[in-house]
Amino acid sequence: MNISLINIGDELLIGQVVNTNASTMSQRLTSAGMEVQRVVIIPDNGDTIRQTLIDELHRSDAVLVTGGLGPTKDDITKSTIADLFHSTLVESPVALATIRSIFERRHYELTPLNRQQALVPDCCTVIDNQVGTAPCMWFEGETINRALHLPADTRKVLVSMPGVPYEMEWLMEHDVVARLRHYFHTSHIISKNIVVQGIGESFLSDLVEPWELSLPAHLRLAYLPQAGMVKLRLTARGENADTLRHDIQNAVDGLYALAGKYIVGEDCESIPEVVASIFRRRRLTLATAESCTGGFVASRLTALAGCSEYYMGGVVSYSNDVKENTLGVNHDTLLTHGAVSEETARQMAEGVRTRLHADFGTATTGIAGPGGGTPDKPVGTVWIAVAGPQRTVTQLLQLGDDRQRTIERTTNALLSLLVKEATM
Amino acid sequence: MNISLINIGDELLIGQVVNTNASTMSQRLTSAGMEVQRVVIIPDNGDTIRQTLIDELHRSDAVLVTGGLGPTKDDITKSTIADLFHSTLVESPVALATIRSIFERRHYELTPLNRQQALVPDCCTVIDNQVGTAPCMWFEGETINRALHLPADTRKVLVSMPGVPYEMEWLMEHDVVARLRHYFHTSHIISKNIVVQGIGESFLSDLVEPWELSLPAHLRLAYLPQAGMVKLRLTARGENADTLRHDIQNAVDGLYALAGKYIVGEDCESIPEVVASIFRRRRLTLATAESCTGGFVASRLTALAGCSEYYMGGVVSYSNDVKENTLGVNHDTLLTHGAVSEETARQMAEGVRTRLHADFGTATTGIAGPGGGTPDKPVGTVWIAVAGPQRTVTQLLQLGDDRQRTIERTTNALLSLLVKEATM
Repeated sequence: MNISLINIGDELLIGQVVNTNASTMSQRLTSAGMEVQRVVIIPDNGDTIRQTLIDELHRSDAVLVTGGLGPTKDDITKSTIADLFHSTLVESPVALATIRSIFERRHYELTPLNRQQALVPDCCTVIDNQVGTAPCMWFEGETINRALHLPADTRKVLVSMPGVPYEMEWLMEHDVVARLRHYFHTSHIISKNIVVQGIGESFLSDLVEPWELSLPAHLRLAYLPQAGMVKLRLTARGENADTLRHDIQNAVDGLYALAGKYIVGEDCESIPEVVASIFRRRRLTLATAESCTGGFVASRLTALAGCSEYYMGGVVSYSNDVKENTLGVNHDTLLTHGAVSEETARQMAEGVRTRLHADFGTATTGIAGPGGGTPDKPVGTVWIAVAGPQRTVTQLLQLGDDRQRTIERTTNALLSLLVKEATM
Repeated sequence: MNISLINIGDELLIGQVVNTNASTMSQRLTSAGMEVQRVVIIPDNGDTIRQTLIDELHRSDAVLVTGGLGPTKDDITKSTIADLFHSTLVESPVALATIRSIFERRHYELTPLNRQQALVPDCCTVIDNQVGTAPCMWFEGETINRALHLPADTRKVLVSMPGVPYEMEWLMEHDVVARLRHYFHTSHIISKNIVVQGIGESFLSDLVEPWELSLPAHLRLAYLPQAGMVKLRLTARGENADTLRHDIQNAVDGLYALAGKYIVGEDCESIPEVVASIFRRRRLTLATAESCTGGFVASRLTALAGCSEYYMGGVVSYSNDVKENTLGVNHDTLLTHGAVSEETARQMAEGVRTRLHADFGTATTGIAGPGGGTPDKPVGTVWIAVAGPQRTVTQLLQLGDDRQRTIERTTNALLSLLVKEATM
């Protein structure tokens, strides 16, 4: 069962908004055993929407559309679909009731423009969107077959959802995915991630080649390199879930035999999840001090639910004043060695560890840029430190002049170092 | 001049990686006056890649491809392109020299697998990728026309780039965008963002309707609603840059006349940029205390270059211990009212303001979920506070059970409140 996604919106094509909808939708559909074979992003243009709908409905069993359902003039998805299916727009009582209740809850007046959002093509099934004012519309079977001149028994589905990520996610979770699984017969899909650290993608590929070549045909392997680590994703597809689980476990055992010493986590999507898994298992606690990463380390850690079990808190010490007063970095150290120095990083990590009563303390201090570099310490110079019960280790990074990349790579390098120190 | 983007990679279709490449590329191309009319995301599958290349080359003047150039077995973009153009792979001296120097710099041994990355179709122009091991390939004119049976004078371009965001960005910035502008004649494009706060999208649309309808035809308006604000983007396209700038300024003046009191910033892409613009202009300083947002507020602020001018630092007070010791929240307050309370938020904001010697202090404390809720304080209950030289204000938010969304919306609500207090 194949799916095409169509994300509609001028804002996606001028690059003002990152299209997270495609990945969220793909993730949910993939884990429900459906395969997204194509994502198409197009502008709010009637002809383009119409032609893309036709192309993708020919190509795939189901087409999921987001965007173009707002109340403003540039939102034309609904009228384009109505036109394609030769249907007229009628007011949906379900949609109107939800819109009314949302407006009442917010104490807003219901304008005629908002009321128009309750209009839907008369050939659709309305899926009640309880978290927003744009209704979700489901089209199936005859409606599609007639418009596209397909054989009468063809089973195709078109779903139109709002582009607001939260609303789309709510609809997928509460209705659309289950409705699709019910309408189509879908096989099982099971996958497993193995996180590997300390070896580059090409060396890893050489190392595991015999294993990779011997994988059964229904198992797929993907390399997903990220800063500082490689994620291997094994995906199995078939009729029997137990068999698939067994096959994947066999493959994982084979991988451990060849590359076990580089494996730092299973089923962790990210390095913060690797950290979480280690700290939780070993009942350790953690505190962070950040200068150049400016809270990014903390925010990556606290994005995970349940982090309060091991994460005590942190200090973002942007000014030297905060480094001295809140973290206890020595005034003379800052004068002699500067804020971006091994000694400052060490004292920050040890300071936050002591003051926040944690087993491990971490620190970052550097010049994220694009300004602030000197011949001695060019932009991208970063010191990181991890202080633990036994020892404090430091590391110098040289990361170039891309600010966001320096922040992200520093965070990954720091959490990698922390993984090493906490698993020693 | 129209462009199609093709992003290749299984990882993009199973939702493991958010496809930021499409938005980064669109942004750069749009600001250089080129129009991205379509983005297509497809798997690492030879037939699909081939057919999509053909379709998009027919549809657009230029097709930019990312992904599938790595050294592993699942990367097949290069061989598919070579095949499409009936060309053979030859070793590029330029590419090999760069790969060698990268490996030498990293003190890695050059394996045969890595050396294969220097192979390119003999009909391409190699664009030197100095930040990675996969070469960038440029195809134009006759090569494309012959393969697609197009008239001999057709001017089409195909560019194949690595999928690693940093490498793609480097190539776009240092070569590809300029090369495209040179190959095609491109008109000017100028745009301006106006950030509006305190009015919903549909009310704003009603309010500015007469203005919107009177905009000249070469000006386009897009509504880009985000949590807590609406961004309006005006885009003008034409032959004369000065005329375009003048037309946009006229339109902006008209918008101020109708909706001036809701406008909080110009050419700010985000609410942190609005904050930055206000704090810099008024020479104010800022410190942050965060519980439920866990460093996200700080990381949004410090993502902007030059933030050390006004941002002193912050405390991520995840545990009560940190709230008391580092921020000075009263022990009895925590016992009586709890960590998630108006009183705690107030003391956190005032504490961080005083202890970090800033003009403004902010605080967030809440239950981001998915666990930790009580009947009194359900998941999504958040208190925010802003302490300034004159007064401290607090606000209660009820944000539902989506952790990441609660963190993001709390951050936006807090920064919006901060904007209000700092511009009083």
